[in-house]
Amino acid sequence: MTTNFYAPPSAVRGSRVVLPNDEARHLRSVLRAEPGDEIVVVDGEGGWYHVQIDHLGAEQVVGSIVERREDVGEPDVHVTLGLGILTTRSRFETFVEKAVELGVRRIVPLTTRYTERDSIRADRLRKVMIAALKQCRRSRLPKLADPQSPAALLAGATADRRLLCHGDAEETSLQSVLRDRPTSVLALVGPEGGFAPDEVDAAVEAGCTPVTLGRRRLRAETAGIVAVSAVMLHSEPAGEGREGDRGEE
Amino acid sequence: MTTNFYAPPSAVRGSRVVLPNDEARHLRSVLRAEPGDEIVVVDGEGGWYHVQIDHLGAEQVVGSIVERREDVGEPDVHVTLGLGILTTRSRFETFVEKAVELGVRRIVPLTTRYTERDSIRADRLRKVMIAALKQCRRSRLPKLADPQSPAALLAGATADRRLLCHGDAEETSLQSVLRDRPTSVLALVGPEGGFAPDEVDAAVEAGCTPVTLGRRRLRAETAGIVAVSAVMLHSEPAGEGREGDRGEE
Repeated sequence: MTTNFYAPPSAVRGSRVVLPNDEARHLRSVLRAEPGDEIVVVDGEGGWYHVQIDHLGAEQVVGSIVERREDVGEPDVHVTLGLGILTTRSRFETFVEKAVELGVRRIVPLTTRYTERDSIRADRLRKVMIAALKQCRRSRLPKLADPQSPAALLAGATADRRLLCHGDAEETSLQSVLRDRPTSVLALVGPEGGFAPDEVDAAVEAGCTPVTLGRRRLRAETAGIVAVSAVMLHSEPAGEGREGDRGEE
Repeated sequence: MTTNFYAPPSAVRGSRVVLPNDEARHLRSVLRAEPGDEIVVVDGEGGWYHVQIDHLGAEQVVGSIVERREDVGEPDVHVTLGLGILTTRSRFETFVEKAVELGVRRIVPLTTRYTERDSIRADRLRKVMIAALKQCRRSRLPKLADPQSPAALLAGATADRRLLCHGDAEETSLQSVLRDRPTSVLALVGPEGGFAPDEVDAAVEAGCTPVTLGRRRLRAETAGIVAVSAVMLHSEPAGEGREGDRGEE
C-alpha cells in the first residue's frame, strides 16, 4: 500500500490497532485488502506503526503492530503559519493541504482588517489535513487553531523567529532570516488585501521581521505555501536525517 | 487599480492601447472606470504600459500610454517546468496558476509511463495563466507547450541546469544544485505515480540531476510549485534589481 492510514492514538491498544470505520471501509472495498497484508498506520501524534492485517470485518479492521517508530517524516523545525482567512474557501483549503504536505505544525486562520470572513469550516479542513497527512507520510497531524487576530497569535507565540510575509516588505529576504536555522518559526501572511499598515506596525512591534517572498505579487495562499516550503528547504538539507524516512518507500 | 490588465501586442498602436472586449467590459461594468483613470496594461511579451483611459465605449476601451517599461516583474532566471499531466485537472490548474505567479517561463505538460491522460485543456489553462499574469504583475505570459514526453523535452532543451525532482532521489538537495545561480533551469516532475525507473535513467542520461524536495512525499503539483519557488528564491535575493518593480505598488 503506497498511502498511509490514519487512526487516532486511542485506536492503538497494546500491540493491536483497530482502524476507524472509514479507513476500514476503504481498505476492504476500494483496496480489496486481505488478512496478512501490511500497511502503515499513523496516529497523528507522532506514532508510526507498521501493521499486519489480522481481520477485516464488516465495520472494522484489526491488525498487529510489527514495528513502531516515532516522528517519521516530521521536520526538526516547528513552523506555525498564520494566514488571513480567504474569501474563497477552496483557496484556503489548497493552502492547508499544501502546508500539511510541506511539514507545517500549526495553522492559524487569521482575522485581520481586510478579511471578509471570520469563520472557517474546521471539520472540512480537518478532513483535508488528514488526507494530506496520509498522503505525504508524516506522522503528526498539524494543529488547526481557532480564528484569531495577528495580535492574539503574537501575544501567545513562543517561536524564536517571527516573520511577516508582506508584499511591501523592506528588502529582507526570507532566506537571509533563516540562515542560522531557527528551531521554531512563526510566519504571518495576510488575506487577499494584505495587512493594514497598523497591523504591520503592530507585528513589527511584537518582534516580527518583514520579509519579501520575491518580486512578484503572490496570492495569499501561494505566499503561505512558499513561506512553509522555504523554511523547510532551509531547515532540512538533503543528506541529514533522512534514513528513518526511507525504509517505507 | 490594483490589478494589471492584459492586451496582446497587436492592441498597442503607437501611443494608444485598445483593450480587448473582456478587459473593457470588466473595467466598465465591474470596476466602474471613468475617462482619466490610470491603469497598467501588460502585453504578455514583456511590454508594460502605464495607461490613461481616454474613452470607454460599449465594446472597447481606448487609452493613452503615459509610460512604457520592459520586463517588469520578470525574473532573471529562465525556468521551464515539465509536469506529468495529472488525472485531476483542477490540480494541474492549481500548479499552472502558482507557477505563473512564481515566475515560470515555460510549462510543459508531460506524458509519461504513469500519466493517465495525454491531453490538457489548453484554452482553459491559458485563461488561468492570463489571470495569474495580471494578478502577480508580471509582464511576460509564460509559454504553454504541447504535451510531450520527457525524452522529447530533454532532446530540445537548452537549459544550463537540468533537474529531475524525484521522491526517491539521491541525497542531492535542490538548493545545492542552485548554489551557482544558473541562468536557465529545466525541472521535471512526474505525475501522481512519479517517474518509472527507466524514465529516471533516461533523464539522468540526458543530463538531469535527480534532486529531492524534502523529507515528505509531495503531491505532484506541490512538487512543481516548490521547484519553481525554490529556484526563484535562490535566483532573486532581495535587494537586487527590485527597484523597477516597486514604482507601481
